[in-house]
Amino acid sequence: MIKPKYLENLIDALTILPGVGRKSAQRMAYSLLQSNIEKSLFLSEQLKNIETKIIKCEKCGMYSDLEPSMSNQINCPNCNRENVNNDLVCVVESASDVYTIEESTNYNGYYFVLQGNLSPIDGRGPSEIGLDKLEKRLSEKNIKELILATNTTIEGEATAHYIKDIATKNNINVSRLAFGLPLNGEIGFLDNETISHAFNERKIL
Amino acid sequence: MIKPKYLENLIDALTILPGVGRKSAQRMAYSLLQSNIEKSLFLSEQLKNIETKIIKCEKCGMYSDLEPSMSNQINCPNCNRENVNNDLVCVVESASDVYTIEESTNYNGYYFVLQGNLSPIDGRGPSEIGLDKLEKRLSEKNIKELILATNTTIEGEATAHYIKDIATKNNINVSRLAFGLPLNGEIGFLDNETISHAFNERKIL
Repeated sequence: MIKPKYLENLIDALTILPGVGRKSAQRMAYSLLQSNIEKSLFLSEQLKNIETKIIKCEKCGMYSDLEPSMSNQINCPNCNRENVNNDLVCVVESASDVYTIEESTNYNGYYFVLQGNLSPIDGRGPSEIGLDKLEKRLSEKNIKELILATNTTIEGEATAHYIKDIATKNNINVSRLAFGLPLNGEIGFLDNETISHAFNERKIL
Repeated sequence: MIKPKYLENLIDALTILPGVGRKSAQRMAYSLLQSNIEKSLFLSEQLKNIETKIIKCEKCGMYSDLEPSMSNQINCPNCNRENVNNDLVCVVESASDVYTIEESTNYNGYYFVLQGNLSPIDGRGPSEIGLDKLEKRLSEKNIKELILATNTTIEGEATAHYIKDIATKNNINVSRLAFGLPLNGEIGFLDNETISHAFNERKIL
C-alpha cells in the first residue's frame, strides 16, 4: 500500500529535530494527524517565526525578539544589560545555557554564546561557531576574566582549550567551571572519570 | 534576562509533539535556531499541509493525499485496494501499523484504522476512536473474520475486548494476533507476563 506523499514529507521534515529518528518522526506525524489541526498550525506558525520574529545578536550570539517598531535594530538583552560587571565574559555553547546559569547563580557579567562546539568532523570549525567574533571581542574590550562554561563532552573540552589559547594570547585570565560530583547524586552511578577528578581535586574541610 | 517571547512560543509549540517535554523542546528550539532556516520553513510547510493536503478516509480511517484534480474525492488506498480478500478486516490502532503489517505479512484483506485506543480517562470513548463506524461496517458488509491487531497495552487489550463484543453481536469470527516470545530476543529481558503466556501456549514440535 502506498504511503501518502505528504505524510512521507512530514515524517522526513520531523527528522530534522535533534534526537528524532525515523520511528519517532512517524509516531509524531500520526499523533499530529490524529490530534486537533490547530496544534499543527500553531507549531507551523512558530517555526515560520524563526525567520521573521527572532533575531540573533551579531556581537554576542544571544537571541531576542525582533520588534516591528525597531525595524532591524537589535535590543540584545545581553549586550544592553544594566548594572553589569564589565570585567567578566562567560562563554557558553548554546543560548539555553545562559538561562540555566542565570537561574542558578548571581553572575552579573556578559555572556558570549557560541553556535555549538568545535567538531571538524561535522564541519564546525572556529569561524562556524563564532570564535572569530569572540577573538575580536577579546582584543577590543578590556576584559579581565573569561569564564569557560562549555559542556564537559569531548567537543566542549576541545572548544574550551581552543578558547584558552586565544585568551592567553590576549593576556586575559581564563577560568573553567569546577569539575566534580554533581549534587544529590549517588557515587555508584557516576562514571570513573568524574570520580577520579573529584578525588584528585578533593578539598580539605 | 528575559527570554524572547517568540522563542518561548516556539518551545511551547514543540511540546505538542508526543514524547517531547519542556527540556527536549528547548533543545529542539535552539537546534533549529542554530541550523539552516530552510529546514524550519520546510517543517513549517509540511505541518500546514496536514490541513490542506492529507485527507482521512471517512470509511476506514486511512490517510491519503488529497489530489487537487479530484477536488474532495478520496482515493483511499485501502478501500480501493485491488485483488483484495473481501472476507477479512484487520483492525489497527494507527495508520502506521498498516504499513508495518504490509511490510511483514502477505495479508491481502481490508484494514480498519482506529483513532487510537479506548481510554475513558483521556476522553477517548468508542465513538472518539471510530468504533461506531466499525460497527456500522460490520453490520453492512459480509465479513467472515475480524483480525484484532491492537497494541498489547492495557488500553489496546481493552479495545480488543470491546471490539470482540461488537463482532460477536454481528456473528463475525474474531481473531487476535498471537502472543508469545518476540523473535531475536533474549528470554532474560522479557517481562513475566509474556513468558507466562508463551509457556502456557507452547506448541508441540
